[in-house]
Amino acid sequence: MKIAIAQLNYHIGNFESNQNKMISAIADAKKQNADLVIFAELAISGYPPRDFLEFDDYINRCWKATEEVAKSCIGIAAVVGLPTKNKSTTGKALFNSAAFLNDGEIQDLVHKSLLPTYDIFDEYRYFEPNTDFHCVNYKGKRLAISVCEDIWNIGVDDLYRIKPMDELMKENPEVIINIAASPFHYEQAARRKKIMKANVDKYHLPLFYANHVGAQTELLFDGGSLAYNANSKLVGELNYFEEDLQLFDLEDLPKEIQNDKQPQKIALIHDALVMGVRNYFQKLGFKKAVLGLSGGIDSAVTMAIAAQALGAENVHAVLLPSQYSSDHSIKDAEDLAKNLGSPYEIITIKSIYESFEKELKPHFKDLPFTIAEENIQARARGVLLMALSNKFGYILLNTSNKSESAVGYGTLYGDMNGGLSVLGDVYKVDVFELARYINRENEIIPWNTINKPPSAELRPDQKDSDSLPDYEILDAILFQYIEKRKGPSEIISMGFEENLVNRVLKLVNISEYKRYQTPPILRVSTKAFGMGRRMPIVAKYLS
Amino acid sequence: MKIAIAQLNYHIGNFESNQNKMISAIADAKKQNADLVIFAELAISGYPPRDFLEFDDYINRCWKATEEVAKSCIGIAAVVGLPTKNKSTTGKALFNSAAFLNDGEIQDLVHKSLLPTYDIFDEYRYFEPNTDFHCVNYKGKRLAISVCEDIWNIGVDDLYRIKPMDELMKENPEVIINIAASPFHYEQAARRKKIMKANVDKYHLPLFYANHVGAQTELLFDGGSLAYNANSKLVGELNYFEEDLQLFDLEDLPKEIQNDKQPQKIALIHDALVMGVRNYFQKLGFKKAVLGLSGGIDSAVTMAIAAQALGAENVHAVLLPSQYSSDHSIKDAEDLAKNLGSPYEIITIKSIYESFEKELKPHFKDLPFTIAEENIQARARGVLLMALSNKFGYILLNTSNKSESAVGYGTLYGDMNGGLSVLGDVYKVDVFELARYINRENEIIPWNTINKPPSAELRPDQKDSDSLPDYEILDAILFQYIEKRKGPSEIISMGFEENLVNRVLKLVNISEYKRYQTPPILRVSTKAFGMGRRMPIVAKYLS
Repeated sequence: MKIAIAQLNYHIGNFESNQNKMISAIADAKKQNADLVIFAELAISGYPPRDFLEFDDYINRCWKATEEVAKSCIGIAAVVGLPTKNKSTTGKALFNSAAFLNDGEIQDLVHKSLLPTYDIFDEYRYFEPNTDFHCVNYKGKRLAISVCEDIWNIGVDDLYRIKPMDELMKENPEVIINIAASPFHYEQAARRKKIMKANVDKYHLPLFYANHVGAQTELLFDGGSLAYNANSKLVGELNYFEEDLQLFDLEDLPKEIQNDKQPQKIALIHDALVMGVRNYFQKLGFKKAVLGLSGGIDSAVTMAIAAQALGAENVHAVLLPSQYSSDHSIKDAEDLAKNLGSPYEIITIKSIYESFEKELKPHFKDLPFTIAEENIQARARGVLLMALSNKFGYILLNTSNKSESAVGYGTLYGDMNGGLSVLGDVYKVDVFELARYINRENEIIPWNTINKPPSAELRPDQKDSDSLPDYEILDAILFQYIEKRKGPSEIISMGFEENLVNRVLKLVNISEYKRYQTPPILRVSTKAFGMGRRMPIVAKYLS
Repeated sequence: MKIAIAQLNYHIGNFESNQNKMISAIADAKKQNADLVIFAELAISGYPPRDFLEFDDYINRCWKATEEVAKSCIGIAAVVGLPTKNKSTTGKALFNSAAFLNDGEIQDLVHKSLLPTYDIFDEYRYFEPNTDFHCVNYKGKRLAISVCEDIWNIGVDDLYRIKPMDELMKENPEVIINIAASPFHYEQAARRKKIMKANVDKYHLPLFYANHVGAQTELLFDGGSLAYNANSKLVGELNYFEEDLQLFDLEDLPKEIQNDKQPQKIALIHDALVMGVRNYFQKLGFKKAVLGLSGGIDSAVTMAIAAQALGAENVHAVLLPSQYSSDHSIKDAEDLAKNLGSPYEIITIKSIYESFEKELKPHFKDLPFTIAEENIQARARGVLLMALSNKFGYILLNTSNKSESAVGYGTLYGDMNGGLSVLGDVYKVDVFELARYINRENEIIPWNTINKPPSAELRPDQKDSDSLPDYEILDAILFQYIEKRKGPSEIISMGFEENLVNRVLKLVNISEYKRYQTPPILRVSTKAFGMGRRMPIVAKYLS
């Protein structure tokens, strides 16, 4: 039996596109004499469809599109993920299902049992857990078909009370097929391989695993679908960050392939962000980006990634100097735009700032310069960038990094503006690493941008280090609090200074109101701000 | 046995305040010879604690605070909601528990079985469902103690496979105690009574139900805790929208009390919004609000509600006229501020707008006036309001209504700014009703504001009706799509015009990117924008 894994970039709710992609992959696989093609979890609807799942109309369209795909399954079968209705009067309205398509129709449905409901996952919000297990017979083989999480509870500390693969083993299957929606973070591909191998180690069956590829707003799917032989050896690894289709002969699987496609953390983050920006624009039907270029590292890295994603000619940089901008800022920003070959323009904010100052003078009276005046500058820039966005149909890219977003070091409705945050899940120390990675062959980001001390340039001679600790220390504390969910005493016991830890954790918590209003952030870590981290605003904890 | 229901306003993460409130209520109840005091679900932590539940430190503090409350339980017992650790290696890390406090210690724990995971609820994200049922014996009575949802599956179409009260009945309890966190929407109090009565109808036991009161950012708890005798008659209904403590003698319950505390929809929404604004400021430690007053109905109603919540003297109105503002706008706005007795100031945006225009001229060239210029005006106002907010420590109130938020009729980083959206869950037709309700005794909101046609006044002679259908029709379509999750064909079949339905639904879906960045919205309906409605941004469904 020849099994093809089809790793495609779906678009949520775009049934026509999803269905046509699958029909074309089935035709492709058929030409190569495949017997079976496997597609990802909820492929027909895109993942995650979120609350569209509560619309009967949406569910009906999923079913109809799957029927269309089934029509092309003549002389070849397919496994396709879709939501289906729970016909019982008890339980949630839907199942998260794998449809087995053959002879032009939907022949069987297998439902998911283990419903991830943590971090960015909300599956129990929509789906009833399956409790009825069966294998699918096809061409004399018993296929143990499962959906994503159903083969992930392979350890000792289990999140769930049942092990679906143990149930399926009662029917003596001959192959494991898993359709998945396993979003990227920089450690996920390695984890995924470990889990797949653990399944083969335990069940001694060949395993075929089909993942999504492509970005759905903040969620990035890196692909990297996998195949293992019954001896736990990797025999197939589909491309990362791009569509792919590969064929495997179940009766003649290789002994082992090289296990080396997985690049290192910074390269992974870079490629994921490029895909994230590119897909966001493609799926919304936009071509051109605009961003404010300060001469600093965050906007420089954002721009280099956007240029890679969209083409340098489609990224419009705007330099927005004020009286506090340093001598080198404009030159560094211009050098970057020139290195990339991107269009750029300069708009000074001095006269706009002064017009705000003049109108506010009777109301501010003679009160001293505070953060209010700093923010007016950042917000004047925000208005100008949005004006260009509105006039020319550009999407504004947000340039905030995770460190500053964490401690609230940014201006709401100012530099926190944008349709998409590119670096919002990248700590400042990693932004520097990204810059060096981007410069690995030649200078794209001016070295002066990388080497000078970070500054918001909103008052004379301002430096980030005036009000924040060194980023190495700040980021390490933030990582323990955000990614590792450690409390203050645990972090202090790691050797960080008590007052500093308390100050940083307080800053994080009192900034929730700001993060609530930030753009979606491309997720590259195990705990990104956004849909996977849900915090109260009026709380009083560590604050 | 004398049972007290204590209905308190908790503060998420503020253990000291929550614990002291409970200790003081226990002292109060003891003075009145109560044997038992019941507090709400997750009372010790505040509801919803959201991802703070993932912090071990947070869970430990919950336990310690509960131990503190237990120390005051001498000669009196209490039931207190808190998260507790699941000691098994299988399942989620926590239970959602009711602690039985007596003789100075935590004597027993009862865990919640049915974990609401829909709309604004995320309980399966954190909690393992309980499967082990037992009653609690106290002073010769068997108490069937349960947590919120555990008594809500009383119907035929059940969301869950088990009925916890059926399990508890096996031990022949003599009274039902339910601790709850049942957030307000304008139909919820009536639903709650129906469900409580259905339980007594089925189990023939007296029932005591303790709810939260007070706002936690967007979630509003209306209180209205309940007591029923074994004959299904209402014998206690605690106050709505305020703290309350009432005592009931189990051996001498009244035959029935009047069941008339429940006001009508618009009055309910009004009182809920007043509480929502008041608590948001109190819990964040702020006193004063600022808002832009246009002379239109949305900002007028927002201001009247804020004045009621915070005191008129604490609400600063800013009139921000442009060249497109109509003759009556300034007068209507001034009349409102004067009627309320609130401070107001006028800042014209003409010169600021012109300075943006001048700087953008070389970039915009001679392109025609578009939405870009409209938005500059709205954003200039946003910058001015935030400048006052930053300078004087005011919180900016957002004045958008649900209809315009739904169709994206608002400027991101402009009039969509604010720390809190007061009317974001109120359709425009209900905003008019609220205005009339506010004017029920005398004219607070100028009748001219209520009677003139709505306009954004961002270009000459603009009216909402130029680009939107009548609000009666728009709101009816939106209600079917948002609250009822009906698809296009279902809505068209109700008699709405096909092109209009398709256009409205498309506007809703393509505006998700804007709503992603809006402030938290006080929730008064069954489906508010925000945490209870989770939509993809890059999707292509009905768009």
